[in-house]
Amino acid sequence: MLKKEFKLTDIISFATSNGFIFPSCEIYGRLQAVYDYGPRGVLLQQNIQNFWWKSMVQFFPNIVGLNGSILMDARVWKASGHVDCFHDWVVEDKKTKKRYRVDHLLEGYISQVKKKNSELAEKLLQKMKTAMKDGDRKVLQQLLILYLPHLPGKREEVVWGEVRKMDLMFHSKVGAFTDQQEKIYLRPETAQSIFVSFLQVQRTTRQRIPFGIAQIGSAFRNEFNTKQFLFRMREFHQMEMQFFIEPGEDKNWFDYWCEQRMKWYRLLGIPSSSFCLEPHQNLAHYAQFAVDITYFFPFGRKEIEGIHARGNFDLKNHQEYSKKKLSYIDPASKKSFLPHVIETSAGLDRIFLMLLSAGLRTGKNKKNKERIYLDLPAPLAPYKLTLCPLEKSHIFYAKKLSDELRIYFSLLYEERGYIGKRYARSDIIGTPYVATIDDNSINNDQVTVRDRNTTEQIILQRRELVNWLTEKTSISSLIKKMSI
Amino acid sequence: MLKKEFKLTDIISFATSNGFIFPSCEIYGRLQAVYDYGPRGVLLQQNIQNFWWKSMVQFFPNIVGLNGSILMDARVWKASGHVDCFHDWVVEDKKTKKRYRVDHLLEGYISQVKKKNSELAEKLLQKMKTAMKDGDRKVLQQLLILYLPHLPGKREEVVWGEVRKMDLMFHSKVGAFTDQQEKIYLRPETAQSIFVSFLQVQRTTRQRIPFGIAQIGSAFRNEFNTKQFLFRMREFHQMEMQFFIEPGEDKNWFDYWCEQRMKWYRLLGIPSSSFCLEPHQNLAHYAQFAVDITYFFPFGRKEIEGIHARGNFDLKNHQEYSKKKLSYIDPASKKSFLPHVIETSAGLDRIFLMLLSAGLRTGKNKKNKERIYLDLPAPLAPYKLTLCPLEKSHIFYAKKLSDELRIYFSLLYEERGYIGKRYARSDIIGTPYVATIDDNSINNDQVTVRDRNTTEQIILQRRELVNWLTEKTSISSLIKKMSI
Repeated sequence: MLKKEFKLTDIISFATSNGFIFPSCEIYGRLQAVYDYGPRGVLLQQNIQNFWWKSMVQFFPNIVGLNGSILMDARVWKASGHVDCFHDWVVEDKKTKKRYRVDHLLEGYISQVKKKNSELAEKLLQKMKTAMKDGDRKVLQQLLILYLPHLPGKREEVVWGEVRKMDLMFHSKVGAFTDQQEKIYLRPETAQSIFVSFLQVQRTTRQRIPFGIAQIGSAFRNEFNTKQFLFRMREFHQMEMQFFIEPGEDKNWFDYWCEQRMKWYRLLGIPSSSFCLEPHQNLAHYAQFAVDITYFFPFGRKEIEGIHARGNFDLKNHQEYSKKKLSYIDPASKKSFLPHVIETSAGLDRIFLMLLSAGLRTGKNKKNKERIYLDLPAPLAPYKLTLCPLEKSHIFYAKKLSDELRIYFSLLYEERGYIGKRYARSDIIGTPYVATIDDNSINNDQVTVRDRNTTEQIILQRRELVNWLTEKTSISSLIKKMSI
Repeated sequence: MLKKEFKLTDIISFATSNGFIFPSCEIYGRLQAVYDYGPRGVLLQQNIQNFWWKSMVQFFPNIVGLNGSILMDARVWKASGHVDCFHDWVVEDKKTKKRYRVDHLLEGYISQVKKKNSELAEKLLQKMKTAMKDGDRKVLQQLLILYLPHLPGKREEVVWGEVRKMDLMFHSKVGAFTDQQEKIYLRPETAQSIFVSFLQVQRTTRQRIPFGIAQIGSAFRNEFNTKQFLFRMREFHQMEMQFFIEPGEDKNWFDYWCEQRMKWYRLLGIPSSSFCLEPHQNLAHYAQFAVDITYFFPFGRKEIEGIHARGNFDLKNHQEYSKKKLSYIDPASKKSFLPHVIETSAGLDRIFLMLLSAGLRTGKNKKNKERIYLDLPAPLAPYKLTLCPLEKSHIFYAKKLSDELRIYFSLLYEERGYIGKRYARSDIIGTPYVATIDDNSINNDQVTVRDRNTTEQIILQRRELVNWLTEKTSISSLIKKMSI
């Protein structure tokens, strides 16, 4: 089998022309870095969500779910540190009007310096970090003028505009009267919904530590760099689980969840060699331990999930800002303490993009012509089956079967066009099976089932079909493998 | 069986104390009219969504799905009429600081006048409507001062503040630099996502008219009146299907979808007599025909879904504003036209509230003590089963069974407390069955299954359990009834 290398542009064009993804509001010239999930995309997205949710909330007796609101009180983001720290410093080259992140420019320069003078490099790095933390834009401006009179590798002098702060959170206002409105933010991450509701969840479910709270939801960031399709979106979807533990058990549970999450990714049918567990180089202020699960995209090795030991950073801050006690009381020992947290935070859109990147394949059909197919795990495929009557006389039988099967499965019924074309259309959107209805169906109540990847065919009794498809294509068939 | 009348306050207290709903950001004093779905609520919410989605997108071969973004280009809302028309006129009583909607105040007065002088009433109504349409706040102020010097039924004179316009859309800004940011809106309804993507969806799925596009998603309105719990939220969830048809077939398809949607509600197990199809008194500017499906809540008969024949109002406007042709070309006749639209627009949160209102019941247990249970249809219940070992010696068997079953079902495992208490906790969150594990389980591989509503018990073989529960509790078992 041939394997063609697909670039990001190929994947974008594949996704948009096959109904997986549309740029948002395209007829109005599109909204940058915001996307709609199209008819095929929304089904794949739902299946990923469904598998993640069931593998967390249904599979583990000590994980429960939550669906927190997108609009959240401004004080949540003060306590979490986002109001003070969640921004980028950006600058414009006045000649070309191109914009850059100041830290990216300076870090590039510093890494050059490091090769010759590591002491100077370290000094510059500290200076930059302090200036960013203190919000001292004058220092940042000086560093640029002093050390980056030219862009890296370019000769021409740059005329830097003013260094500016770019808030990564979307603001809005809530309330009846314009002069009495309160500032609110669209949540830039889903995690804080879990922390602020931690005690209500624990009390109403009577969970005991260790236990987790899982959530799938939208988050919003006014991103500066918006050129990587679903990888960096202004409106995106997270699948997060925060696991609350006794302080001191952090390392054990951190290791446990790293292992569990890697197991989950292996069940997606992508070779283990495409994934990597990369420890963070620079730990975030809240993290004791942290790794990224990375995948090798056509545009490089990139994070699809982060696993972080957050200590009691978040609960402590919310306790301080809200002045509400958030400690957990152990029912046995009556000991009261602020739990520590292990977080598994996955990007749903990134996993979606990974499945397209990993699944898109070229092969040969029986006539030795090139064919394209999308190798998705059957339980995640948008449709489980395409049902095709071969001739007009088979339509009645096929339609009846289609009506029976669509009670249980998402499927397509295709009666128009050459069968080869119908195969091709079914393969390219990742449908694992095509069932053809022919004279044998009418005479012997049998259907011919063709496999997307191998193109091989088998014959099944019609009455076996529901069980056979359930076995092959249900999310439960994946969850079953979780316990092995 | 006793039937107690539950008030809205009872339902709120039930929902918040049993993990169905939490006020958003409660530790910070809560965000008005914004709610989180708690651990039990999120499961019920997902099941309602799942049933609706499958009954639309999976069941009908000519309905496909979409998941459009929440952030949308401002021009979408200019074209839809929301920028110009989607606001309330509000006024404050300066003495009491209470706020009122101007149209509600005036309509109340006009309906009084109507009894004595219908001509004057009609004149006033027209004057008010024109002023609201033209944005003439002076006229509205005059009408208030002239006709409402007192509040209805009150003696004391009111001192009206300035009449003010309250925009119902949430605003935000997108883009890198503060001075170059573009205004955007959080979508106040999901419908427009479908209209602006109509042609992309049609082309990539090769659907032919008549066909529908279905979507479940969040929408946002800066509501003025926020006192009806989940009924009027600032962040809410819609389940909408827009059905595209040939012009002239509007009435037939409108009737068809009214019937289909009523059938769907009947499958929720709520008596038909609790629902009503109410034709709109005043048709919206875009509607040819319109009905509300209403339900009798503890606070009155209220809309849970609207069905509207929207003509080509939306597609025509988007075509005009975007300057992109949005006509559909019929593949057979090559005729090109702008389709008409029948919309079914349901409020997910309202259906959720309806299920709690309709399902909450009191009864007697075997010891003649009052018990409370939530009568949800089994396929929608957050958990399908509570698994309870009777004694310590049964725990091993019960845990093993729990691990087997949670591959397929959402369930709770409860080993602590008296069995009666465990029944009560299972009943109140709507779990249809409790399976107890006792000596008979260990000796004969059998489990005792108790019904939530009747409290009657039957004995099943362990190996029958997966099929039995699937039959009773799967969404497919409901979808099956769609075709009858």
